[in-house]
Amino acid sequence: MEKTMIKGNLFYGQSGGPSPVINASAYGVLHAALNNENIEKVYALKHGIQGVFEEDFVDASTLSNLDLLIQTPASAFGSVRYKLDSHVKNPAIYKKIYQIFKKHNIRYFIYNGGNDSMDTCLKLNNYFETINYDISIIGVPKTIDNDLPITDHTPGFGSSAKYIINTLANIKADSTVYPKGKVTIVEIMGRHAGWLTAASFVAKKEGVGPDLIYLPEVPFDLELFVKQVKTVYNANHNCLIAVSEGIKNSENQFIGSLNNTIDAFGHKQLGGVGMYLGDLIEEKLELPYRVIELSTPQRACSFLRSETDVLEAIKVGEKAVEYAVLGHTSIMVGIKRLNNKPYISEYIKIPIHKVANKEKVIPKSMILNQEMSDDFYMYMYPLINGEMPVRTNNGITRFFKL
Amino acid sequence: MEKTMIKGNLFYGQSGGPSPVINASAYGVLHAALNNENIEKVYALKHGIQGVFEEDFVDASTLSNLDLLIQTPASAFGSVRYKLDSHVKNPAIYKKIYQIFKKHNIRYFIYNGGNDSMDTCLKLNNYFETINYDISIIGVPKTIDNDLPITDHTPGFGSSAKYIINTLANIKADSTVYPKGKVTIVEIMGRHAGWLTAASFVAKKEGVGPDLIYLPEVPFDLELFVKQVKTVYNANHNCLIAVSEGIKNSENQFIGSLNNTIDAFGHKQLGGVGMYLGDLIEEKLELPYRVIELSTPQRACSFLRSETDVLEAIKVGEKAVEYAVLGHTSIMVGIKRLNNKPYISEYIKIPIHKVANKEKVIPKSMILNQEMSDDFYMYMYPLINGEMPVRTNNGITRFFKL
Repeated sequence: MEKTMIKGNLFYGQSGGPSPVINASAYGVLHAALNNENIEKVYALKHGIQGVFEEDFVDASTLSNLDLLIQTPASAFGSVRYKLDSHVKNPAIYKKIYQIFKKHNIRYFIYNGGNDSMDTCLKLNNYFETINYDISIIGVPKTIDNDLPITDHTPGFGSSAKYIINTLANIKADSTVYPKGKVTIVEIMGRHAGWLTAASFVAKKEGVGPDLIYLPEVPFDLELFVKQVKTVYNANHNCLIAVSEGIKNSENQFIGSLNNTIDAFGHKQLGGVGMYLGDLIEEKLELPYRVIELSTPQRACSFLRSETDVLEAIKVGEKAVEYAVLGHTSIMVGIKRLNNKPYISEYIKIPIHKVANKEKVIPKSMILNQEMSDDFYMYMYPLINGEMPVRTNNGITRFFKL
Repeated sequence: MEKTMIKGNLFYGQSGGPSPVINASAYGVLHAALNNENIEKVYALKHGIQGVFEEDFVDASTLSNLDLLIQTPASAFGSVRYKLDSHVKNPAIYKKIYQIFKKHNIRYFIYNGGNDSMDTCLKLNNYFETINYDISIIGVPKTIDNDLPITDHTPGFGSSAKYIINTLANIKADSTVYPKGKVTIVEIMGRHAGWLTAASFVAKKEGVGPDLIYLPEVPFDLELFVKQVKTVYNANHNCLIAVSEGIKNSENQFIGSLNNTIDAFGHKQLGGVGMYLGDLIEEKLELPYRVIELSTPQRACSFLRSETDVLEAIKVGEKAVEYAVLGHTSIMVGIKRLNNKPYISEYIKIPIHKVANKEKVIPKSMILNQEMSDDFYMYMYPLINGEMPVRTNNGITRFFKL
């Protein structure tokens, strides 16, 4: 199982969408690798795999304030969305990759991302096996969507969920101050998996959440929606709704794709699901509405992060280095939950083909009608727990800068 | 100047839009009033002046966890937008107010809000003077817009500015991860005064801010805007823009009012200034864009508040009680800055007619071309300074509940 340790250099890359803690994982990888005697040079790729093609990377030993990575959101080294062909389909590109890896004696490749990024790891590993190039390829999970299988959860999810829950609590406070309020629709990220939107059930349970919540896992019925909003509004004179951007009707069609609008310049536009539901409410119930799209701050928040999440994000990075120097390859570091209260987790090695291109949605058993199961709450609470202090300068979060 | 102390009861009310710290002022008022021997009963009105008409208020001595008000955003006692007629125009309503004040022996009226709320204080005071009813009417400033005159700044502004600055820093990190990015337009509150949008210059100075910033104080030129965006995008392959919802063209017309769109149901809608500028960029430059409206979270954020702001918000509440029992009336508590570094301020009594219905925009001398004067930075820094710890429960900010 464990091969002889390989002496050589390391590439670390970030890929896919930003997260509040992917740079905490970067810190885990870089800090551990710089302090590991089996690894000679530690390079951070710019824009992930694109940094390989362009030989664009930085020597991590030259970087200062590495620990500021822990509180810097998004991808400090730049990200990329690049779908690698297989080596059978596009041998030329692999030849180039091999040449660059060989040239810089890269024996460790640690890639930080979601399911697409794990696919990149898998393909690279398959290729390097065919040419017998000795390398450890390890995936480090990252995605606010929490949609990777096998791992209990993914770093990034807990902090984004915490941001969403607390922001909803604030929106709830804001939207209920007047005797007669509006219908407020909050649009939350998650194209296929509704984990982030489901997190708002935690706010609801604490009495500071939305009245109505709609997940992509449950077919969305426009008529039922209007009826439910009417009932809540009539009772409370306001109504707060959390809706996933990915809700679909029973024909599996995105509700957002129904929102064909015409802008001030006469162009057809897709107006988004939140605005569609708002316009629908105006059309059917003649009620005032406000749409709040939580947008990118929900995936790149430097404040209000979960301590559990940040510490685990660092740890999966450190574990990746540990597994790499032990000679493991083609695995993703996963998190296994051992206990809820107190929360205890351990780190596991997941064969990368089991996660690449796969997606985990919320199990049906957790979803009740406008409620979630007790299992869901037990699952959620540890992930949003603990406050991370933030180092500031003149009231502004200090960021790591390349 | 100082009248004999009046023994009697106190009404405290909140009015106008929510703020991150109006409840901190509520804490200051209620806590000080409950501990003042000249004040017998302390009542918090529900929905401000409407709570008078409906005799709907709570006895503050019955409330528990009053200190949680300090970290609860929006208006915990409910707000109202109600423009009081003068007693000359509508004597009936004043007769009703008098009866209710008399019935409950209200001798102190402390009203927490912006310029409209100060107008309410002024009118009540004018009326009570004509009938020789002995009462102290004190205004407590509140507005994220920072548009009240004479006072150096208003409680709420510092925390909203801090939220906006740090959120822009996060959006900046998020929007620059890919080799080729989008034009990102962030729409910020402020219909007439651009203080909150101007705060983003602080982020820019720290290297984490928008590339371009547009204030309502400067006539907005659509052609120049397109040219400026093109220049930045060509240089950086992305462009971050902060824009006030209140920008106007040289004919004094809101740019947002140009955004006539048609929704999916065929209705004409006003699409907002951010979307208009995004659609314009697509039309003129064919660049991808994203619009982020910071929306209500910028005025009701329970986390990431400025310590200066929270402590001053409490203090203006306490001062209002102090001035009231000394017999002052028809004044608003103001803040006077004595020194920048270290920041020192004191509290002053401002005749309420000097603030009612008046608006303070950014002085021309502070605005340079796509920059701000040194005076502006010196003005801003203390206001966003210091971190407030937040008490949480399961990772969620604890709120005061009525």
